Amino acid sequence: MRAQQIVVARPINAQPVAADFRLEEIELPAPEAGELLVRTRALSLDPYVGSTLRGRHMGHDSGAPGTLVVGLGIGEILESQDGDFSPGDLIAAEIGWRDHAIVKAETARRVDATLTPLSLHLGVLGMPGLTAYAGMTHRAKARAGDKVLISSAAGPVGGTAGQIARIHGATKVVGIAGSPEKCALVEDKYGFDQCINYKEEGWQDKIANAFPEGIDVYWDNVGGELLNTALTNLALYGRVVLCGLASQYHVDDRPAGPNPGLYIGKRAELYGLVVYDFYGEQADYAAKAAQWIADGKLTYVEDVAQGLVAAPAQFEKLMRGENIGKTVVRLD
Amino acid sequence: MRAQQIVVARPINAQPVAADFRLEEIELPAPEAGELLVRTRALSLDPYVGSTLRGRHMGHDSGAPGTLVVGLGIGEILESQDGDFSPGDLIAAEIGWRDHAIVKAETARRVDATLTPLSLHLGVLGMPGLTAYAGMTHRAKARAGDKVLISSAAGPVGGTAGQIARIHGATKVVGIAGSPEKCALVEDKYGFDQCINYKEEGWQDKIANAFPEGIDVYWDNVGGELLNTALTNLALYGRVVLCGLASQYHVDDRPAGPNPGLYIGKRAELYGLVVYDFYGEQADYAAKAAQWIADGKLTYVEDVAQGLVAAPAQFEKLMRGENIGKTVVRLD
Repeated sequence: MRAQQIVVARPINAQPVAADFRLEEIELPAPEAGELLVRTRALSLDPYVGSTLRGRHMGHDSGAPGTLVVGLGIGEILESQDGDFSPGDLIAAEIGWRDHAIVKAETARRVDATLTPLSLHLGVLGMPGLTAYAGMTHRAKARAGDKVLISSAAGPVGGTAGQIARIHGATKVVGIAGSPEKCALVEDKYGFDQCINYKEEGWQDKIANAFPEGIDVYWDNVGGELLNTALTNLALYGRVVLCGLASQYHVDDRPAGPNPGLYIGKRAELYGLVVYDFYGEQADYAAKAAQWIADGKLTYVEDVAQGLVAAPAQFEKLMRGENIGKTVVRLD
Repeated sequence: MRAQQIVVARPINAQPVAADFRLEEIELPAPEAGELLVRTRALSLDPYVGSTLRGRHMGHDSGAPGTLVVGLGIGEILESQDGDFSPGDLIAAEIGWRDHAIVKAETARRVDATLTPLSLHLGVLGMPGLTAYAGMTHRAKARAGDKVLISSAAGPVGGTAGQIARIHGATKVVGIAGSPEKCALVEDKYGFDQCINYKEEGWQDKIANAFPEGIDVYWDNVGGELLNTALTNLALYGRVVLCGLASQYHVDDRPAGPNPGLYIGKRAELYGLVVYDFYGEQADYAAKAAQWIADGKLTYVEDVAQGLVAAPAQFEKLMRGENIGKTVVRLD
């Protein structure tokens, strides 16, 4: 059958823009044994793809012109050559930016079709939500009374992490974001106590003033100067979850990190987080999070574009940091 | 009464040498209420004093000419103006490099006179031993099956840390040291499986080869390239105890540390360690360690000089890295 897909149009050596991509039509083969033919219902656009396209993400080299752009998606099965799945089932899988795809059944994860909109399985119920949950629960071990600082707080990981810290009993949750609009989202929608715009002068002092007794948990999506500032304001025995390096997605050299003396002086506890390790908990987490949403304890915001052709412009918006909430493309 | 002491003779702007110090005689006042007059029985010489003398250690500024050199010591009480102590009692306290001193009773810690030589209370039974014990037990939580790498392994902290890891069930303990003599000590006396001399070519490869399945626990006394190399060879979820920064004691700028991406990729757990936090466990630890020594599970090595006048040369030797074992001066 015919399918539409979006591929890299030219080598990408800087922050990706819409013109770096082009739409093309291809002929999909019929699914073979163990494969599924799916119709894409929603696509996730993620910051890490920016580095992937430049060959910077572990193991991938997906930036060559003509290459399909990578991306997790939600697909509806049209035809199944695998005993575990039937037509009509909904799955999450690496689909890429296309409207139909052949997917290996062993790489597909069934999602609960009763939890809608389906794009939530790419955000608060999906990998970003699981990242936040695993990091706050298993690594930082957030607990009653914690005072918590979250970077990239307007994003789906940070926004969920702060809310989950609160669910675990945190008494103060402060976010960091890059615009007044994002900060409004963090305070008004996610219910953080405060949001600090790191693009405004004096953000370092604002962090210090927000935590007179020190930061118990710092969630780092960024690295760089923000990590240094958070460490400087850490409480003794404060915990740091290292989750991402947004400050480095578009630089060529990996900059050095904080001097180890900072960690020693604060008796800091640092925890590297990779969500892959927690995939086994995905279904349990999704059920738990759906209940939190139903109970009004957990809120999400999506930045939605409609239709596959809208993906490149939507991705450019994400790369510019102009998205508000989890960035998705719906293909319904 | 008359006392002899060693003071800074001239400003110290580089690695300290014996000629940076001079001996002088002073008149000690009589002890007032809450004070003790002690005769020094042993003095601890420690690497951190090198940075203290250059004004680099937190809060101290003890490098001005004429200033008494700092140092923990074991003292025998000659006269007590405090109800908790009596003449003949033995204490550990900040005495400095002198043969007699007035010490505030509230800063003194009684030591067990039956555990001899008394200088052990400055090493394996004292602060270095407690550092190793607290870091391995409470921070790294060393356990059966761990494969452990220890930097500065010939020193009293590193040497004890490796042996305590073994007591906790570590199945492989590898040390890093800076000379063949030190490596012989680490292997032959402390019983490590292997010691790697970081001053020989190819030490990075030797670390990688020693840990084909990765390092479970890395004890960092050094920072710098050694920390980077250990992180590169860390097992997933490996633990790192940050205890010291020997690579930075004699540099003016605090160099940056490893890129946080290294910690993320390894899901590393980092723990800053400051021994002050564990002083409450000192007596319990000393009793436990004394039993381990009696049982042949824990060994120590001292580098002893005799007499206060020998302290400057002994300290220069320590600064040059030529000491073998815990550096002390005995005044018996």
